Amino acid sequence: MRLLIRNAYVIPVAGSDFTGDVAVEEGRIVFAGPTGAVPGTFEADETIDATGMVATPGLVNCHTHAAMTLFRGYADDLPLMEWLTRKIWPVENLLTGDDIYWGSLLAGLEMLKSGTTTFADQYFEMDRVAQAVEEIGLRASLCRGLIGVSEHAEKALAEGCEFVRRWHGAAAGRISAMLGPHAPYTCPPAYLKKVVAASEELDVGLHIHLSETRTEIEQIKAEYGCSPIALMEETGLFHRPVLAAHCVHLSEADIKILARRGVGVAHNPQSNMKLASGIAPVVRMLAAGVRVGIGTDGAASNNDLNMVEEMRTAALLQKVAQGDPTVLPAGLVLEMATAGGARVLGLEDRIGTLEVGKRADVVLWRVNQPHLCPAHNYQAHLVYSAGRADVDTVIVDGHVVMRGRRVLTVDEETVLRQAERTARRLIESV
Amino acid sequence: MRLLIRNAYVIPVAGSDFTGDVAVEEGRIVFAGPTGAVPGTFEADETIDATGMVATPGLVNCHTHAAMTLFRGYADDLPLMEWLTRKIWPVENLLTGDDIYWGSLLAGLEMLKSGTTTFADQYFEMDRVAQAVEEIGLRASLCRGLIGVSEHAEKALAEGCEFVRRWHGAAAGRISAMLGPHAPYTCPPAYLKKVVAASEELDVGLHIHLSETRTEIEQIKAEYGCSPIALMEETGLFHRPVLAAHCVHLSEADIKILARRGVGVAHNPQSNMKLASGIAPVVRMLAAGVRVGIGTDGAASNNDLNMVEEMRTAALLQKVAQGDPTVLPAGLVLEMATAGGARVLGLEDRIGTLEVGKRADVVLWRVNQPHLCPAHNYQAHLVYSAGRADVDTVIVDGHVVMRGRRVLTVDEETVLRQAERTARRLIESV
Ligand SMILES: [Zn+2]
Ligand SMILES: [Zn+2]
Repeated sequence: MRLLIRNAYVIPVAGSDFTGDVAVEEGRIVFAGPTGAVPGTFEADETIDATGMVATPGLVNCHTHAAMTLFRGYADDLPLMEWLTRKIWPVENLLTGDDIYWGSLLAGLEMLKSGTTTFADQYFEMDRVAQAVEEIGLRASLCRGLIGVSEHAEKALAEGCEFVRRWHGAAAGRISAMLGPHAPYTCPPAYLKKVVAASEELDVGLHIHLSETRTEIEQIKAEYGCSPIALMEETGLFHRPVLAAHCVHLSEADIKILARRGVGVAHNPQSNMKLASGIAPVVRMLAAGVRVGIGTDGAASNNDLNMVEEMRTAALLQKVAQGDPTVLPAGLVLEMATAGGARVLGLEDRIGTLEVGKRADVVLWRVNQPHLCPAHNYQAHLVYSAGRADVDTVIVDGHVVMRGRRVLTVDEETVLRQAERTARRLIESV
Repeated sequence: MRLLIRNAYVIPVAGSDFTGDVAVEEGRIVFAGPTGAVPGTFEADETIDATGMVATPGLVNCHTHAAMTLFRGYADDLPLMEWLTRKIWPVENLLTGDDIYWGSLLAGLEMLKSGTTTFADQYFEMDRVAQAVEEIGLRASLCRGLIGVSEHAEKALAEGCEFVRRWHGAAAGRISAMLGPHAPYTCPPAYLKKVVAASEELDVGLHIHLSETRTEIEQIKAEYGCSPIALMEETGLFHRPVLAAHCVHLSEADIKILARRGVGVAHNPQSNMKLASGIAPVVRMLAAGVRVGIGTDGAASNNDLNMVEEMRTAALLQKVAQGDPTVLPAGLVLEMATAGGARVLGLEDRIGTLEVGKRADVVLWRVNQPHLCPAHNYQAHLVYSAGRADVDTVIVDGHVVMRGRRVLTVDEETVLRQAERTARRLIESV
């Protein structure tokens, strides 16, 4: 299968923008360069005329809980603990595997329709999440969430390991797996050490929530006399590749640890704002050499999985927090949401840029629209003006999964109907 | 002309949501209530089946500079003074009346396509802005910007007054006019007093930038020994109806003055973030009884005129700034962007809610979409998940100006082409 994208304005993220073509063979980019330069020997099975469109790498959503789309708009504007204990946990307890399958498909639809081609997920009933990913054609890094303080802690770890064995590398390589210790305040050091040992044995990374709220910082400080980051360092977590979601409250010493250990941080600005968790020190992290990608977190705290807007929020929030309009310029934010995200998930060899050798995860944006006119600067337009609906075509691993905003892999109406029905049943049962 | 909107989920902003109909006669809402209750005597010339859609009042953009869409993406991520003096002012100096006409039409298209039906504008060549407003069918409160320290200060004031006489109440009442003293640091008290006197004579309000940056606060403090708000109070500005854009840096005394004087504040969160101006104390203002609406500011500092997203940013920014997820809940934000905005512009008798007696400015939102599913709470969905592209139909003053996202009043392709051409000429001449 050979695919040719012709005449796009290409933002490859690696190197300078150009107007030209991207050629794909067996899901791999084999050419990316100016119009007319694609080798004459390349005979395309399918050609997409992308005249008047912008091509970018697919966006990488570094942290979410896909099936929580079922709770979108169910509980907003509440104090954090009331939101969690009275609204989210009771209804989460009712979720079946089928529910999680439909919630994940709903999330998958939403992500494809907003230009996300890869996401990192931590939840439960992960076989059903993986099934949804496989069917809808996304790329994902999945892990079963592990609560060390639960009576089912050991069973969960066994399931998490089993999930890794079953799914790591599945769906033609689109699915990778991790182990998912939930957070320092739900996973004591002794449990974390077991998880670290398992991740070593399975040769996969870890996906954890870290330093999200002041309450967490205070709790860990009271119990262990140090910061959550220092505790994780001591526990040996950072000897493994780690994807750390949030990292909102950090000391300079914490930032040094994250940089030295090559920890990947998933920055979730809208979730941190909506839950009033705080503002992550992204500028300081980047200056220290920490790898930072961008994520949406789950739809119960965002309330959408829209990476286009998450880019914009990341940029604007750091500017006002730093009192400096020059920080996080458009090009850097675009890099964080693509190549940076790939690095944070350990997938930088495969995705994140439009370069020869990478898997073909490509988004085509329709730019002949009032809010993207005039064409002064397409990188700025994508970060500061674009919306999800500007995404026209999405290609994952060389397959066209959305064209003209129509998702080709699943039936959208069915997913919406089933998700709606599921959500209704859940809130009526709670 | 009688228009009937049937079977929508109606968020009237005044009163409870309901599923039902809105009937319009001669541009005025004559009925809004549950399905089946519209009077039998009402014979519609046109009926819109809004099944599966949400109806809200049109959004009110309380502060922008429409024609600056021409500079969208032209200068981003720069220090404030460099941005203004090296990039924006030089190119602004080149603008002709025709340029401003096309820039305003581009802005009008963008605003209609994102659910805005009314906007407040301060710029120059305002006859051409008014012409664009009249043609595209929007509602607007317009004023010529007045720079008191300029050698043309008197001439500008005369033009501003002339504009009011010519356009206040024009376009079948859709256009209202104000006087537009630019800011305390560009308009000395002596000049402001003349403007106030003229506004009294003309019986119109004033639209001014106020307390936007720390630099402004320091400058006014150094020159006059008080805050910009206190200076305006002393100058007598607040004896007139005032629309004050920004109000980012305020003391408790300033807030008390704004409340006591009934000053309307236009909060522009994305512009304040992008230019790193600061975070306006919206929660404190509301608590003190200050009227606050929402605006986008110009596209050179935002970079779009998207009130849907501006609502979301307003909510999220206050939550994180206050460390409290309960502040600015969805319903309040929706109120600020509609009825609140109307109040701030002095148009609360005419627009802002879907109530009998109001002019019919209505937006129909298409909600059968992944990012708005499930249907737990449409108010939350509009504020936290919706995007501009969810706006399907826009009605202004009883006229359908957009249907199925097609703007019916101007030719979109022509506007995009002319705006692009204009922008290109400008940056090549600068
Ligand atoms: Zn999370
Ligand atoms: Zn302004």
